[in-house]
Amino acid sequence: MNTILIVGAGGVGGVAAHKCAQLPEIFHEIHLASRTLSKCRLVATSIRQRTGQEISTHRVDADNLNEAIALLRNLSPDLLLNLALPYQNLTLMEACLATGTNYLDTANYESPETAGFEYKWQWRYHEEFREKNLCALLGSGFDPGVTNVFTSYASKHYFDEISELDIVDVNGGENNESFATNFNPEINIREVSAACRHWEGDRFVESPAFSTHRSFSCPEGLGDFEIYRMYHEELESLTAAFPSLRRAQFWMSFSPSYLQHLKVLTNVGMTSIHPIDYHGELIVPLQFLKSILPDPGSLGESTTGQTCIGCVLRGRKENQPRSIYIYNTCSHESSFRETGSQAVSYTTGVPAMIGAKLMLQKKWFEAGVWNMEHFDPDTFMEDLDSFGLSWSIEESDPFVRKACS
Amino acid sequence: MNTILIVGAGGVGGVAAHKCAQLPEIFHEIHLASRTLSKCRLVATSIRQRTGQEISTHRVDADNLNEAIALLRNLSPDLLLNLALPYQNLTLMEACLATGTNYLDTANYESPETAGFEYKWQWRYHEEFREKNLCALLGSGFDPGVTNVFTSYASKHYFDEISELDIVDVNGGENNESFATNFNPEINIREVSAACRHWEGDRFVESPAFSTHRSFSCPEGLGDFEIYRMYHEELESLTAAFPSLRRAQFWMSFSPSYLQHLKVLTNVGMTSIHPIDYHGELIVPLQFLKSILPDPGSLGESTTGQTCIGCVLRGRKENQPRSIYIYNTCSHESSFRETGSQAVSYTTGVPAMIGAKLMLQKKWFEAGVWNMEHFDPDTFMEDLDSFGLSWSIEESDPFVRKACS
Repeated sequence: MNTILIVGAGGVGGVAAHKCAQLPEIFHEIHLASRTLSKCRLVATSIRQRTGQEISTHRVDADNLNEAIALLRNLSPDLLLNLALPYQNLTLMEACLATGTNYLDTANYESPETAGFEYKWQWRYHEEFREKNLCALLGSGFDPGVTNVFTSYASKHYFDEISELDIVDVNGGENNESFATNFNPEINIREVSAACRHWEGDRFVESPAFSTHRSFSCPEGLGDFEIYRMYHEELESLTAAFPSLRRAQFWMSFSPSYLQHLKVLTNVGMTSIHPIDYHGELIVPLQFLKSILPDPGSLGESTTGQTCIGCVLRGRKENQPRSIYIYNTCSHESSFRETGSQAVSYTTGVPAMIGAKLMLQKKWFEAGVWNMEHFDPDTFMEDLDSFGLSWSIEESDPFVRKACS
Repeated sequence: MNTILIVGAGGVGGVAAHKCAQLPEIFHEIHLASRTLSKCRLVATSIRQRTGQEISTHRVDADNLNEAIALLRNLSPDLLLNLALPYQNLTLMEACLATGTNYLDTANYESPETAGFEYKWQWRYHEEFREKNLCALLGSGFDPGVTNVFTSYASKHYFDEISELDIVDVNGGENNESFATNFNPEINIREVSAACRHWEGDRFVESPAFSTHRSFSCPEGLGDFEIYRMYHEELESLTAAFPSLRRAQFWMSFSPSYLQHLKVLTNVGMTSIHPIDYHGELIVPLQFLKSILPDPGSLGESTTGQTCIGCVLRGRKENQPRSIYIYNTCSHESSFRETGSQAVSYTTGVPAMIGAKLMLQKKWFEAGVWNMEHFDPDTFMEDLDSFGLSWSIEESDPFVRKACS
């Protein structure tokens, strides 16, 4: 009898709940909890309509350790899927340790007061999870998550040694908004405004945000996009797991309009995370901005196009240089039809379900705190294909412009 | 013994107080009041240092009729100079009527809830002022104000009939901010975001904000600027006072960067004047934006360059077509040296002082509510020349591009 508790009823939590409900033979009992109970109920109604399954809903303030512990004690789930904001990761890991619950998340801890992210806060819990025979799987979304699995799958089957990694995240989707972020605007803007870091030789080097960019031609005729190098958390765990890497970079596509909006909002101070005194109230400008921007969840219905996320790997196999590109493309429209959310949430929520499935099946289970590349990638790659995120491999380097034919 | 009360200790109120203090033979006793007493005290200190004169300072909430009446009863000024926000005009006119005080302002009434401005709210008080033998002078700044005087001066001396008027307001100043408004950001953004209206034939016609623009070559080598047609309040009184006008337009210069910032902020909803519910508090996005933008008053020290504001008039004199251009140029740096404020405040505050001077001297005094063009322009034009805003007349049309020599 497997019981799971999903915390977070935004786009990703909603997708994961839908996907888990599609597999009642694995997920026998599903609980969904959020600060806002009405959001859980909307997801439950959608699941009932789409799959005929019932899930339970609960209110919880995931910032409050005692509330989280009380809910876990009450439900005794085998696994907590933390799909709330990354601010809550440490509280929820503590709650899992206190109650003997396994743990999974999709994004690493961030402090509300400091932009920038690193795994050290969560890796610190490794010994405690190990001692209690509990497993914590970190970053089981798409990027991080599937990108880690792609890398370890390529390393296992295509290379004797990998030396370069480029992760490329293209959102070719369009909606009717002049400015809208793909996911939680606060987290998104914090992430993309941070200084860029990439792995060069044997260390991370820093460069200004948005200072390095290039054109990228997506496969399957999705078109050309301008991609910008930025820091992303899987670079930290992957460069540690694959020490042969001499360069590792993360790239994300942004439209000229998105960048113009971000630049202006930053110029005037609206993206600042430092509270200001507004008529006696302390208000964080970025949080106020978030409150007036479109809720990414509301854009699912109007978003068209595809995402295209993948890894370019270069290295050697049997002493020959080799380059491959592993990627997934995902349609916003079909994601919305299946789960009520667009592809950005879909591509994160499906790997969360797969990670949870493999943990419950004990295929991916080892006491301690682990990133995705720790476990065997083959079974995860099979599940990606089976559960909506099929992938392709090209034996070529998309960063090298093909000659005109 | 002339006593005046200046309400408003922002840039304009500060300039007017400095200029009045330079004329102790006219302004025997000067009181300065504001919601924020510390701003009054800063102005008083600057006046003491620059002119050796003393002024009195007071705290008043100009939105509160009873507070305003109490202050007027206490001080018994001959004249109230309303240099606060245009939201307060009606309250302060009521307070003047209740206490038998003459009234002057520089910008017409606006309701906080509705963008857009018209004189009807204030013209409505004409009979009451007339009956009490009080004079209210509306719009005694630069535009409106000096632009009205320029128009009536040109009409009196240069034309038998004027048929076209173009008012052109160029701010050729620069500062180190990526986005800063010339004056109160809330009022400025409301004004420039409103739909454009201009007089065509015998009526106002509307067009979208920023939809009509052209290049304008400033005199005295100040350079070329892109000017945008927009609505401005003096068009209402001038087309009524000069019914021969077949076209009347107002133009203002904006930099590409200013427009880009304004567009983005409007796109995301930050320029909205409709309150939103933010964690249970009602907050007007534009007012929140104002609170994080630079205080225009703080930019005086770093602003360089000139303003150039004037009127292009076309019509007939002795049956010949005639075009003239009357303008003033004003240096941000010298304005700051003299009064601690840059030219945008200076060009508004000096005409406020001149209007007050002429009212106290009974040169411009008639019971009722009047716009500037009601009074004889010659004496005002003389004072402009004497008190820091000298003007020039060119017998040419700057809208007609000169042929290359």
